[in-house]
Amino acid sequence: MNRPFVFINSAMSADGKISSRDRRQIRISGKEDLMRVDELRAASDAIMVGVGTVLADDPGLRVKSRILREKRKDMGQLKEPFRIVADSNARTPANAKILGPGCMIAVSYSAPEERLDRLRSGCEIIKCGTEMVDLPGLMEELYNRGVRRLMVEGGARLNWSLIELGLVDEIYIYIGGLIIGGERAPSLVDGPGFRNSFPRLSLQSVQRLDEGLLLQWELH
Amino acid sequence: MNRPFVFINSAMSADGKISSRDRRQIRISGKEDLMRVDELRAASDAIMVGVGTVLADDPGLRVKSRILREKRKDMGQLKEPFRIVADSNARTPANAKILGPGCMIAVSYSAPEERLDRLRSGCEIIKCGTEMVDLPGLMEELYNRGVRRLMVEGGARLNWSLIELGLVDEIYIYIGGLIIGGERAPSLVDGPGFRNSFPRLSLQSVQRLDEGLLLQWELH
Ligand SMILES: NC(=O)c1ccc[n+]([C@@H]2O[C@H](COP(=O)([O-])OP(=O)(O)OC[C@H]3O[C@@H](n4cnc5c(N)ncnc54)[C@H](OP(=O)(O)O)[C@@H]3O)[C@@H](O)[C@H]2O)c1
Ligand SMILES: NC(=O)c1ccc[n+]([C@@H]2O[C@H](COP(=O)([O-])OP(=O)(O)OC[C@H]3O[C@@H](n4cnc5c(N)ncnc54)[C@H](OP(=O)(O)O)[C@@H]3O)[C@@H](O)[C@H]2O)c1
Repeated sequence: MNRPFVFINSAMSADGKISSRDRRQIRISGKEDLMRVDELRAASDAIMVGVGTVLADDPGLRVKSRILREKRKDMGQLKEPFRIVADSNARTPANAKILGPGCMIAVSYSAPEERLDRLRSGCEIIKCGTEMVDLPGLMEELYNRGVRRLMVEGGARLNWSLIELGLVDEIYIYIGGLIIGGERAPSLVDGPGFRNSFPRLSLQSVQRLDEGLLLQWELH
Repeated sequence: MNRPFVFINSAMSADGKISSRDRRQIRISGKEDLMRVDELRAASDAIMVGVGTVLADDPGLRVKSRILREKRKDMGQLKEPFRIVADSNARTPANAKILGPGCMIAVSYSAPEERLDRLRSGCEIIKCGTEMVDLPGLMEELYNRGVRRLMVEGGARLNWSLIELGLVDEIYIYIGGLIIGGERAPSLVDGPGFRNSFPRLSLQSVQRLDEGLLLQWELH
């Protein structure tokens, strides 16, 4: 199967949480890290999140720096990477910030047509999977559309599915200097979890950034 | 209130889990880290865990190295640190490895007498708290018994209570190169979790160890 190079980028607390128990977005990193994330975005062909993140955080997923956008244009790329939501039942709200030119919503064949109609003006709809978005199928489709480098910005359940399916090559984790705690707070990788044959990572780099630490892990 | 210096030591996966979804103990670190933990133990006056950890892992909490034990003796200390369980209802099994000379089970006044009787031959019983172990009270009691440096070796809920009560000074986290995943897998800090005013940490040191990374955080 042809697929893009896939990497996850996420910020977590020292205890592995990516937001609080009430799924409120928490500022985990600082200015330096936000600049780093902007550069990672600008160097990607597409950025993907799960619909849980759209509903909780309503992220725009744009490249913030004008310089980075211009640089992409100079290199003959689109000014910004595609923005993709894994959203089996088309639950993305019609006023979500992610919508607009360059946005694709990946849905399953069970997504209600009236919801799709509401979204169509703000995005392209990609159908794959009967009940749930078929991620390997989506990867192939993205590859066929020219996506070679895909950045995944969470959340917890999408990270799980991608890792479980063996679709992730690298993970960048920014660890912030705070404790969030909570057995129900989303962590970096949720879902059912592994029982054995835990995926192994090797540490590529470690860098102090803001008040925390940036780790780069490679999956085997 | 007088209390010992309290530090948590724990190993977690890259995604913040301290064991798997079925609470099975996972080998997260390697040989170098186990030696480091043994040295931390030998340099402590007491080691504490929650009864959840006793039930799940049945740890012995001994100092493994004979040399370290002898060194303690030469310095006029007990050969090994005290071993303490926070166990409101005296659920520690009568054949738990932690029992024996130097073991203290901290229980609440609600703990059934017949359970206490079963345990008494293998440990000293400390009563504090009406329904649940009163941790600040326990800290004061330990201080009065000469404990100046207390090592906490988990688990997730005991870590939470201690941090929430402001009783933790430092946290050592070994991060291993694996993903465990799972919304129900225990993480470094569980319990209800913070909603706001998240405790802040500052990074004291970072060290590569085995295939992972050792972080030392100080609580503010
Ligand atoms: N700190 C950070 O860096 C960061 C980054 C992102 C998010 N977050 C936090 O993460 C939380 C959201 O995480 P989450 O786990 O709830 O949501 P998520 O991973 O963003 O989205 C999960 C949803 O995506 C949909 N989906 C479609 N196909 C899927 C597939 N094959 N596998 C898995 N999911 C699929 C599912 O909903 P359907 O069944 O409806 O399709 C699923 O419930 C929020 O609290 C947010 O603040 C933090
Ligand atoms: N990777 C590591 O380094 C590491 C280290 C240790 C444990 N673990 C893992 O952690 C898991 C166990 O964690 P856990 O959260 O279930 O158990 P835990 O934190 O070890 O024990 C929690 C229990 O302690 C008792 N307790 C008494 N007073 C308390 C108080 N004031 N606050 C909180 N708890 C109090 C409570 O039971 P009562 O109400 O009955 O008193 C509570 O349920 C296991 O899966 C184990 O493998 C991993």
